[in-house]
Amino acid sequence: MEKYDLDVLVSTTPENVLYLSNYQSVSHKLLKEVQIYAVFPRDLEPVLIIPMSDLDLYADNPSWIKDVRTYGTFYIEEGESTELSKSELRLAKLQKIAKPGLDPFTVLTNVLSEKGLDKSNIGLDEMGIDYVTQSKLKAMLPEANFKPAYNILREIRMIKTKEEIELLRKSAEISQKAVERMLESVKEGVTERELAQELEEVIVRNGAKPFLTVLGCGTRSAFPNALPSDYKVKKGDIIRFDGGCEYKGYYSDIAKIAVLERANEKVKKYFKAIALGVEEAANAIEPGVKASEIFQIAMEAVKKAGIPHYRRHHVGHGIGAECYDPPILRPSNQTVLEPDMVINIETPYYEFGLGGLQVEITIRVTQDGYELLTPQTFDNDLLII
Amino acid sequence: MEKYDLDVLVSTTPENVLYLSNYQSVSHKLLKEVQIYAVFPRDLEPVLIIPMSDLDLYADNPSWIKDVRTYGTFYIEEGESTELSKSELRLAKLQKIAKPGLDPFTVLTNVLSEKGLDKSNIGLDEMGIDYVTQSKLKAMLPEANFKPAYNILREIRMIKTKEEIELLRKSAEISQKAVERMLESVKEGVTERELAQELEEVIVRNGAKPFLTVLGCGTRSAFPNALPSDYKVKKGDIIRFDGGCEYKGYYSDIAKIAVLERANEKVKKYFKAIALGVEEAANAIEPGVKASEIFQIAMEAVKKAGIPHYRRHHVGHGIGAECYDPPILRPSNQTVLEPDMVINIETPYYEFGLGGLQVEITIRVTQDGYELLTPQTFDNDLLII
Repeated sequence: MEKYDLDVLVSTTPENVLYLSNYQSVSHKLLKEVQIYAVFPRDLEPVLIIPMSDLDLYADNPSWIKDVRTYGTFYIEEGESTELSKSELRLAKLQKIAKPGLDPFTVLTNVLSEKGLDKSNIGLDEMGIDYVTQSKLKAMLPEANFKPAYNILREIRMIKTKEEIELLRKSAEISQKAVERMLESVKEGVTERELAQELEEVIVRNGAKPFLTVLGCGTRSAFPNALPSDYKVKKGDIIRFDGGCEYKGYYSDIAKIAVLERANEKVKKYFKAIALGVEEAANAIEPGVKASEIFQIAMEAVKKAGIPHYRRHHVGHGIGAECYDPPILRPSNQTVLEPDMVINIETPYYEFGLGGLQVEITIRVTQDGYELLTPQTFDNDLLII
Repeated sequence: MEKYDLDVLVSTTPENVLYLSNYQSVSHKLLKEVQIYAVFPRDLEPVLIIPMSDLDLYADNPSWIKDVRTYGTFYIEEGESTELSKSELRLAKLQKIAKPGLDPFTVLTNVLSEKGLDKSNIGLDEMGIDYVTQSKLKAMLPEANFKPAYNILREIRMIKTKEEIELLRKSAEISQKAVERMLESVKEGVTERELAQELEEVIVRNGAKPFLTVLGCGTRSAFPNALPSDYKVKKGDIIRFDGGCEYKGYYSDIAKIAVLERANEKVKKYFKAIALGVEEAANAIEPGVKASEIFQIAMEAVKKAGIPHYRRHHVGHGIGAECYDPPILRPSNQTVLEPDMVINIETPYYEFGLGGLQVEITIRVTQDGYELLTPQTFDNDLLII
């Protein structure tokens, strides 16, 4: 916060709230009416602002922010039971001190005023509060100096904690397992929809949620956003998956292709080229290297290895509480890689009539290089199943 | 638009874009960077603005907006194939006319200027564009008169089309089937997590996505947001599910409880009271009735039928392309019900040490009453399994 000359940071988006508070709401991602704020002053105790209907989640999954304030109204009755669990007792106590009926905006301005921050430099995560409310907030605190903090928080979030890395690893492993299981089900006549469902079943059976299932077969694999359809797989078809799951708030996004029974030489050669692009990009990763340099290395590798006309706007992205965290590996990005960034690398190639070829993997930047989160090894030969 | 004195409506949120364009992007809900605008002038042809990386989706799933403009850059190579499908040909053609490299904001201001709408009354769906960009937009078009249109669009969306009703019916049926299958798996020792996975498997196997799986057993059912845990079900436990799925962009949200083997008299009596609340609220539904009146009827029914101290802030909500569409059935809501509104009714009761009791159903307002979308009949006796 010193770097940005801020007296307080206010998170408003689910991913930035999670980062500052370790608190995840079920309804925050779902309903625009639900506002959650993590207020993090430089020198004072932080405050978490949640709807009263979220108090059970807070009681059952403690945040390291101990000062919680609520808005809105919700009723859980006391009953007569004397044998309550720890979470129930915590919730009952929290309910008693909650002031019902306020709106989130009033609670936020009250907290900022109470902390003497109403005339300070406020880093406001501007992406989680709508224009009308934000205008009102600025009018209510005319002496405060608001700075947009969404990208500041995202920049801080580039370096993952140990706990985040373990969740990202687990998330990636679930997606990897799901793709492998799906590929085992590929046979002539199976539909994209059936394959997608096979994959999503593995995801939910591992306690995660599918968030993106791009699955295109045959020449449809050239559609970058291919939605699973009733298209039936034929011999010689490419099967392309891109997507993954969300596990406890952390995303995985992997891509893999295979070909049923026989592949033509062009597909084999092109696949090897894009796979080498990913491997060479990964091998170039270490602290101190710039995102833009990784982009150039991947592009040159793919071109040299067999696709001289290869074009692409990025070759990967950070991953974390968002599917696309910074840094994006694109030519204009001067971000310098640091240990414990978690980054996806991908070099997809799409061609009409041929299909889509793609490898997407997740790595962690280490002190002197990188660690593959998944898969465990590179395999640059096209998978024929 | 005449009612609101608007010359053009600009949708920016996924649900409002879907309503105006029949277009659904995979990345719009996922990545904040992705902006999609449906520009709908009162007297001129509408325009859809999407990222170039979305063109395949547009080509494969046509929108009724025929004028599509793109921003950003994306590459799908031409190849040598001469046998392309209709969608591929459409995409290849669209790619050729797309101007790469622009940003969404510039494309939007260009379209508004080109249509002579830069000095008009612009209804801007203010929830899908961040504060910084919106300020810039307003500065770029200083003679335009911007009005927030998010709630105007949501109000228009309260009345569902035939196609929307069929998708909502299908979505509700999938959730209903999933809950029933899950309840068949309840036995002593099964965990909340296992039950949740059973339910989510049915959802993905039916081509839908789970978006909310609240599943609490025993006294944990009193936690309104109960996240599935390793808690093992015991005889006498309440099993409470609340949540559902998203099917082709349309939500279902249902709730159901059951008790394993034996229930005490208080639970039976209280359950009958809340179930009667739902039934009486449903029976009061017809065009011309206010949301607030339905609230009062439900509250009085629950109180009279056995929970005199019943308190609640709402007894249901519209449902559609958002899990909570308007109207919310709450005491202050004067919205008058109209045919083809689709509405959820729920009267949950939570008590520490006892648990959570809940029925949530979905109805469609008809010309002279209502139709149950799911379940097919009321059953106000507690389900003992």
